[in-house]
Amino acid sequence: MEMKNSEDIRNLPVGVFDSGVGGLTVAREIFRNLPNEKIIYFGDTARVPYGNKTKETIIRYSKQIANFLLSQGVKAIVVACNTASALALNELKDSIDVPVIGVVEPGARAAAAATKNGRIGVIGTEGTISSGLYSEFIRKIRPDCQIFGQPCPLFVSLVEEGMIDDEVTITMIHRYLDHMIENDDIDTLILGCTHYPLLRTVIAREIGDAVTLVNPAYETANALKALLEHKDLSNDTSFDLSDHSFFVSDGALKFQQFASSVLELDIQNTKLKILE
Amino acid sequence: MEMKNSEDIRNLPVGVFDSGVGGLTVAREIFRNLPNEKIIYFGDTARVPYGNKTKETIIRYSKQIANFLLSQGVKAIVVACNTASALALNELKDSIDVPVIGVVEPGARAAAAATKNGRIGVIGTEGTISSGLYSEFIRKIRPDCQIFGQPCPLFVSLVEEGMIDDEVTITMIHRYLDHMIENDDIDTLILGCTHYPLLRTVIAREIGDAVTLVNPAYETANALKALLEHKDLSNDTSFDLSDHSFFVSDGALKFQQFASSVLELDIQNTKLKILE
Repeated sequence: MEMKNSEDIRNLPVGVFDSGVGGLTVAREIFRNLPNEKIIYFGDTARVPYGNKTKETIIRYSKQIANFLLSQGVKAIVVACNTASALALNELKDSIDVPVIGVVEPGARAAAAATKNGRIGVIGTEGTISSGLYSEFIRKIRPDCQIFGQPCPLFVSLVEEGMIDDEVTITMIHRYLDHMIENDDIDTLILGCTHYPLLRTVIAREIGDAVTLVNPAYETANALKALLEHKDLSNDTSFDLSDHSFFVSDGALKFQQFASSVLELDIQNTKLKILE
Repeated sequence: MEMKNSEDIRNLPVGVFDSGVGGLTVAREIFRNLPNEKIIYFGDTARVPYGNKTKETIIRYSKQIANFLLSQGVKAIVVACNTASALALNELKDSIDVPVIGVVEPGARAAAAATKNGRIGVIGTEGTISSGLYSEFIRKIRPDCQIFGQPCPLFVSLVEEGMIDDEVTITMIHRYLDHMIENDDIDTLILGCTHYPLLRTVIAREIGDAVTLVNPAYETANALKALLEHKDLSNDTSFDLSDHSFFVSDGALKFQQFASSVLELDIQNTKLKILE
């Protein structure tokens, strides 16, 4: 009887949420690395972006979304948004009963493992950088590291406008990052916002290959895999893209178009879910 | 008795709302042109921006805000946001009992009066431009006009980052506007988003003085004055900045800082009001 219950739980989906489309970079890594897990994605497109809103507001929004995902019967929740991970993860862990992971700790762990000279840059939204949470996690693992944070508020708009390999984006990359490379001498850079992996190729080309880029989306999928195995929650059924569910709080069609054009994910039947 | 009631109504404040800080450019014109009116401002900073959200969502948010302003006893409402004016004004007029004006019709009227060659450019958010409402109002007055719309989605982020006279902003001004000047031969340009007047000086310098810039914020203050006079709702008490009330749905301090640094409005005691 207990065995059966446990099997049932393993079959349940994993909830994944973000302020909008950015978290699809995390979902994509989960599809690749955990093909036996079904996901329910929520993008809060009616209230996007989160990056420059207050901690109180991000906690409130995150709890509303987590409650919606729980109502859909998820066995675990991935906070696929750096800002929500940085500002609301502890509050979520305290208030809900399923395991919750964010993108900050996996990203911090990967950066601590990657750096040789102990000098790590972190780029993200205002909220993520001012939280100091990447620094905190890195220093727990390697207290010798020095961490340099830089908010890059324009990157989200540039990605959402499709301005990837664009002279304006290149100008902003240099404006935001040159001092980290030239003065702070970083050898590792955390792409601490789920939109930024979409700029990865251009950033790598512009700042050169002396700096290792860490993509927390990739690390988070690995961390989810380890978590599910540890808790005996891993599923063993194979899924494809049409088995997953996608919800947004506004503009389902636009969400699908972005997923299709930017992420090459052919997502059908995204449903609207208003949260208030 | 009726006289007294009517006098009481005249003493009531005017509600002004926007998705965030941009509507303060409208509030500022009201302070200048209607010093006898007290305003209650609401900035929906928890859900900003509105520019790329759907009509359904903008209508829902606008109604929530209008209901809050009515609960504060306003005698009229100014929709100081182009996107909300373009997408939600008719629905607001149908659902509430006090006079409501938006920024689109006054801006359209001023542009129709200003153009010599009948070729008018409109810049704004995706929502404002795709609504086609500026064109509709202009053609009602001057059916001979040709109107050219251009969404400028990056301008809001650039203004909010304080990147006013900046090489990136100048690049984007030319990218968005050059074809309107060179190919479409416009002689009048409507700054159809409340953030854009903050770029007015730079836009004017870059596109040259052959094009007249229309600021709907200025025109809206004039329209409000005419409306209040027409309805016998004008007040005759003089106010200063500390008499007005400001509410935001998130980040009161950041709102005050923006008002102070960008708009040179010294707004104290902005209050938080969560709408859901």
